[in-house]
Amino acid sequence: MSVVHPPRRLLFGPGPSQVEPRVYQAMAQPIVGLRDPYFFEIVEEIRTDLRVLFGTHNSFVHVLTGSGSYGMEAAVANFVEPGQKLVVFSAGFFGDRIAEMAARHGANVFVCRKPWGETFSEAEARETLGREIPQAVAFVHAETSTGVLQDPKAITAAAHGCGALTIMDCVTSLGAIPINVDASGVDVAFSCTQKGLSCPPGLSPVTASPAAVDRLRARKTPCPVWSLDLKLIADYYEEPHRYHHAAPISSFYALREGLAAIREEGAEARFARHQRAHDEFVRRLEAIHLSMFVPEPTRRIPNLNTVRVPEGIDDVHTRKRLIAEFGIEIAGGFGPLAGKIFRIGLMGPLATEDNAAMFVGALAHCLRD
Amino acid sequence: MSVVHPPRRLLFGPGPSQVEPRVYQAMAQPIVGLRDPYFFEIVEEIRTDLRVLFGTHNSFVHVLTGSGSYGMEAAVANFVEPGQKLVVFSAGFFGDRIAEMAARHGANVFVCRKPWGETFSEAEARETLGREIPQAVAFVHAETSTGVLQDPKAITAAAHGCGALTIMDCVTSLGAIPINVDASGVDVAFSCTQKGLSCPPGLSPVTASPAAVDRLRARKTPCPVWSLDLKLIADYYEEPHRYHHAAPISSFYALREGLAAIREEGAEARFARHQRAHDEFVRRLEAIHLSMFVPEPTRRIPNLNTVRVPEGIDDVHTRKRLIAEFGIEIAGGFGPLAGKIFRIGLMGPLATEDNAAMFVGALAHCLRD
Repeated sequence: MSVVHPPRRLLFGPGPSQVEPRVYQAMAQPIVGLRDPYFFEIVEEIRTDLRVLFGTHNSFVHVLTGSGSYGMEAAVANFVEPGQKLVVFSAGFFGDRIAEMAARHGANVFVCRKPWGETFSEAEARETLGREIPQAVAFVHAETSTGVLQDPKAITAAAHGCGALTIMDCVTSLGAIPINVDASGVDVAFSCTQKGLSCPPGLSPVTASPAAVDRLRARKTPCPVWSLDLKLIADYYEEPHRYHHAAPISSFYALREGLAAIREEGAEARFARHQRAHDEFVRRLEAIHLSMFVPEPTRRIPNLNTVRVPEGIDDVHTRKRLIAEFGIEIAGGFGPLAGKIFRIGLMGPLATEDNAAMFVGALAHCLRD
Repeated sequence: MSVVHPPRRLLFGPGPSQVEPRVYQAMAQPIVGLRDPYFFEIVEEIRTDLRVLFGTHNSFVHVLTGSGSYGMEAAVANFVEPGQKLVVFSAGFFGDRIAEMAARHGANVFVCRKPWGETFSEAEARETLGREIPQAVAFVHAETSTGVLQDPKAITAAAHGCGALTIMDCVTSLGAIPINVDASGVDVAFSCTQKGLSCPPGLSPVTASPAAVDRLRARKTPCPVWSLDLKLIADYYEEPHRYHHAAPISSFYALREGLAAIREEGAEARFARHQRAHDEFVRRLEAIHLSMFVPEPTRRIPNLNTVRVPEGIDDVHTRKRLIAEFGIEIAGGFGPLAGKIFRIGLMGPLATEDNAAMFVGALAHCLRD
């Protein structure tokens, strides 16, 4: 009877990542109303579990309707007022996206830009921030366009030296690797459900430190985006549960279930499993004489591998073969990296040594004529 | 194993409304990637089916990530530039919400306000618009806070007389009653999935006339909300399928299935069924000496009934009994109508004469001591 018959894919791309059957089953449970006590129970359980993964004691942890990009827009719209200076450290597509959004909301944006694939040192951050003296600083923890991990402390230490609020994009890292929002001195962090949390896309977890919340409450102007106004959203999910918008109840069920699965495995065990899968991936990859785009192991995102496309290989052709012959989805590079890298996620149920080995075997097959 | 065990509810409120099992089953199908050809097939089928329900030949029909309020914000953010004059005709909560959003985006907003529950005549619209000469006019087709239906032509005729673009909120009407966007002279309309379309919340269908799209393309400033930028969204869902954000694939599956069910029944048959359920509801209600909040039958929203709370009855107590004894959710009034009305939806699978009769029986029971 149903008209929806999707092809079965193995989602080895940068996201959405593979979802476990129990999450789909939870998603198919019947919805309740927007202010049903059962819904708010689910919300509280989600908030509790997210604190562990964010590595925070922040009271302010909420889940926005939308993708990780909506969380990004909420962060800049709520925590940077028009006219305030924001410095964005960008060495990739998503760093630039933060700058683009903030500019639309009237922030005075300065982009400290390096070539795609690089990172920022504390000395570089101090130099820039000492000169610009911004009210807020934003950067990407795990840059999905390049596979590069930025050390948060290199930037937050410099930012706090000039009293700036720190905003971190952890869209690709949350749930797969440690985030440590509190220990890293991050004031605002946002993510998504479809990568490290192994749920379908649809929601964006956001957390804010007490200092960030104070700044939010002290705003002189309303948040320019009504839908993403975190004061209104907090008043809906917390007491007095004032109606704001129709939350996607089914997506909350999915997230609740996905977080329960993570809790059952244990966050540390999950992070370790992702690291082992990554290590096996790199070992297998180098064994077939391919090379990682990011040379230094410590600057690689364990759950999102960027691999150099070998000389003479058409990356689109290879990706089409992976889909056609194995049902495997991966992504290519874009912008300056178009045609130059493959982007390969090892996340959630696919983040095992066996799957890493299987994947590299399939890739090797599709690279042959 | 699953941790999600929602209580079973009969959703007789203003939304979310009851969802059929086949829609939940579709939602639980495995996701594909964000640019998988299968996903874009689903998107095209959805766009085709939505044109029928919107009553439009517009090429521009898209589905935004978010609730109906996100669609509302997209409408004002994309089609009213900062400094342009927008007249909002408001006689309820959601009319005021349009004005609030547009003000945040820098529009020059004039609200033509009447008491909650009233409507606007063509003469009133002409008088206001002749004086204000706005670039855009917005109003609510079916005002969820009052249960009142506004005749679109009364406003659009006057608006076109002064060259203004017309924006209509049909969050509560789409899928349950005819919309006739083209015949009514509406340039921009937005809705949701969780009311007349009988799907879970999560998406917001939006349509725009060629004239509205021309105005969008001619904007001098970028849309102030990146996430809701309809030019970027159209470039994702249509060729060249340029990545914008991670669409909630599962919600699209649900909408695809919900629209297929509507197509199988036939839109006209569905509208007629909703009308019959409404007529039976009113007949049964009056038989137990209750009265509708909207006196004139032609001004009532057939799928969202507002009923006067009888003298001496505590509406919260009655609603609690309905949930506790029957698992039935309805809503109360808010703002000036708090404690004064019940808001009762008869939508989708619940919009039958039998269910209307059953519901009124349950309500009568819960009104007794």
